[in-house]
Amino acid sequence: MNERIPLKKKILSENDRLAKEARDEFSHHSVVALNLVSSPGAGKTSLLERTLQALGNDIRIGLIAGDVQTENDATRLIKAGGGEMVWPVVTGGACHLDARMIMRVLKDVDLDRLDLLFIENVGNLVCPSSFDLGELMKVVLISTTEGDDKPLKYPAMFRRSGLMVVNKTDLLGTSDFSMQRVVGNARSINPDLEVIETSCRTGVGLDKWEDWLRGLLASGQ
Amino acid sequence: MNERIPLKKKILSENDRLAKEARDEFSHHSVVALNLVSSPGAGKTSLLERTLQALGNDIRIGLIAGDVQTENDATRLIKAGGGEMVWPVVTGGACHLDARMIMRVLKDVDLDRLDLLFIENVGNLVCPSSFDLGELMKVVLISTTEGDDKPLKYPAMFRRSGLMVVNKTDLLGTSDFSMQRVVGNARSINPDLEVIETSCRTGVGLDKWEDWLRGLLASGQ
Repeated sequence: MNERIPLKKKILSENDRLAKEARDEFSHHSVVALNLVSSPGAGKTSLLERTLQALGNDIRIGLIAGDVQTENDATRLIKAGGGEMVWPVVTGGACHLDARMIMRVLKDVDLDRLDLLFIENVGNLVCPSSFDLGELMKVVLISTTEGDDKPLKYPAMFRRSGLMVVNKTDLLGTSDFSMQRVVGNARSINPDLEVIETSCRTGVGLDKWEDWLRGLLASGQ
Repeated sequence: MNERIPLKKKILSENDRLAKEARDEFSHHSVVALNLVSSPGAGKTSLLERTLQALGNDIRIGLIAGDVQTENDATRLIKAGGGEMVWPVVTGGACHLDARMIMRVLKDVDLDRLDLLFIENVGNLVCPSSFDLGELMKVVLISTTEGDDKPLKYPAMFRRSGLMVVNKTDLLGTSDFSMQRVVGNARSINPDLEVIETSCRTGVGLDKWEDWLRGLLASGQ
């Protein structure tokens, strides 16, 4: 199966071409796009629900919600205030979003009506790391229930992200998860990685996430 | 990229051929092989550590520990009593184990010295579902911190598994996870799916898992 590697390169190079088109679109319309990645169940949708509730009146937020199957996340985000600015993408078995899927959705999106676009990827710490979606930055979520060794075991995702959100801090102490260790492990792979600790359940730390988003938008990125 | 689908078929058909070789090997040596799959951090390695401690004196257990990067899991399993019967497989970026990797490891394994072989897959609820490793059965772990909607969102994995272990039951009540809902969702996809509830932290439910394993071995599978 020697053709696998050249084919993978070809797929990724085609993806990069389409990601550049998406990036140009975002830039042209001054939209900040973030690609949200994590394991299944780390809290991507919960974080986005909280973000809509906190910032939805000040910032024009759009959301592309990727899933292997079901539109459950999109439904949750619509209910949380995303309204008509939520676009589901069901990959039908594929383990990641790719730039072609994003370009297809963008046909339905009036980017002039948005400041910030979240792309919620499929829950998977491996495959989505390889696919640029035209985003400004990947934001990786990890929950305290997953174990603090995950950055070492899935390094590509942490290397390619600009921010790590450590979620479910309300469950610290129920396992041997150490905040110091997870940050140390992540920064051993990516020394520039920013870190924010949150609990989407209690709300602790969400102010820092919201400030970070406001700062990103204000910096004119 | 129209060549993607035929190529995927070709890869899977080659994988099936090698998986059949592995299955024949297991059968010839009367080894029960289980393919353990889950999200990152659901507790595969913890369950195996507990299993080695509980059954390691009665049952001859081997473990193939797959990871994208690092041999951390293998090291944990060796310490937990797996000793020289632990074989790490680092996929080097690949998001799943495949039958070729298993056949390569089996060259170093004396199957006559084993009753039970666990294959701990890469932490990923999507890709490993497509790759037969010659196992008797896939066992899917899900932790109560991941959300009870996961069987609906990642249906292929739950459709192709014979047993679902719901782990981290000590954390029930810290989220809106419902045991009834997760079982209902999983059985809406796979009505024959067996279910065992465990907490690898407290040990509750592990007796059922151990009984299940003993039953599987006794049934002469």
